[in-house]
Amino acid sequence: MARDGHSRRPGRPGKDTGAREAILGVARTRFLARGYDAVTLRSIAREAGVDPALISYYFGSKRGLFGAAMALVTNPAEAIAEALQGDPATFGPRALRTMLVSWDSAESGPALLGMLRRVAADDDSAALVREVLERELIDRVADRIGGPHARMRAMAFCTQMAGIIVTRYLLRMEPIASMPAEEVARLYGPAVRAALQDPVRRRPAGPAPASANSDAGTRGRG
Amino acid sequence: MARDGHSRRPGRPGKDTGAREAILGVARTRFLARGYDAVTLRSIAREAGVDPALISYYFGSKRGLFGAAMALVTNPAEAIAEALQGDPATFGPRALRTMLVSWDSAESGPALLGMLRRVAADDDSAALVREVLERELIDRVADRIGGPHARMRAMAFCTQMAGIIVTRYLLRMEPIASMPAEEVARLYGPAVRAALQDPVRRRPAGPAPASANSDAGTRGRG
Repeated sequence: MARDGHSRRPGRPGKDTGAREAILGVARTRFLARGYDAVTLRSIAREAGVDPALISYYFGSKRGLFGAAMALVTNPAEAIAEALQGDPATFGPRALRTMLVSWDSAESGPALLGMLRRVAADDDSAALVREVLERELIDRVADRIGGPHARMRAMAFCTQMAGIIVTRYLLRMEPIASMPAEEVARLYGPAVRAALQDPVRRRPAGPAPASANSDAGTRGRG
Repeated sequence: MARDGHSRRPGRPGKDTGAREAILGVARTRFLARGYDAVTLRSIAREAGVDPALISYYFGSKRGLFGAAMALVTNPAEAIAEALQGDPATFGPRALRTMLVSWDSAESGPALLGMLRRVAADDDSAALVREVLERELIDRVADRIGGPHARMRAMAFCTQMAGIIVTRYLLRMEPIASMPAEEVARLYGPAVRAALQDPVRRRPAGPAPASANSDAGTRGRG
């Protein structure tokens, strides 16, 4: 882990919390003003007056910096990246549980809810979160699950998460608000699994021809 | 339709738009301050200084008054009530299409989105919408679909709607934001149908015993 390709060593990281704060301030402003893709770590480093390697040192990656800049104790993009590591066949339930743990937590939940409220209140925040979700969730999940219609299936998965987040944490509707996380996972597990399945294959038997699967397009490794 | 049980005829309804506005003003304030259930049409009429029958005359019902007070061109509670009229077996896809029409409409969509933004910004609005959804959506859908776990299934249905609303209309994420409504209906139809199905029955074959259905509880008309 020590030899991870840093070409220039940052000066005394860890002692210089002023630099860390400067990076976060610049990142927050730039992300909100310009979006996620358009902002480079190099440009943030330049404006904050630090070595670009210091950003990697403190935050690991662009998505790590994003989570820190948005003051998220748990970074959803990082959590998704972690859930994507395991078996793709069980990604759905695993990601659902990860989401529930982050949002149920007294430590990370309030910051996530604050972020959701900002998204609803402010167009710049909405544009930023949309971009992060498209890049760090939809694109990555689609790459990982592969097969036909991968992006649509990743989108349907994201819709499942959004529905649970809004009804359980924002609206706090019953009966979902008071359910133990395990029960939510059990109740929504099938829908999350179904969302990740090929919409052509999962269509109920009947009018669909037996060859439906071969019509499903050839994008990905289906 | 003229003989619908009004015991007292309101004085010249239709000419007195001042009374209509007075009712709406009182209703808005009372709903937000006290919630949906606690407010009676009688108390609103008293504060607005009108005959209670005038409220029925103008708004038909409590949920009609709620929609009007919240300035919704399309009242989701009314739309749900209408979708519930038909065959329960096809309620899911029908409600999904109704929702898409309302939110896609240039006339009613912005007001619905405004309501969602208020829910995220303001706890009183959130409490009110939560109550309306619990009473007018969850309870009614549960009554209509019947069978075991009817309320949980109605909740899961509501979660599907919430997910689509947030990703398509609030976050405007791709690819769902630009899909034609028909494609959204096709993509999410199976998940909406699955949500309304008994979670015990729909569990994939395997560890669940063949008698699982008889363990599912006896609430409703399963």
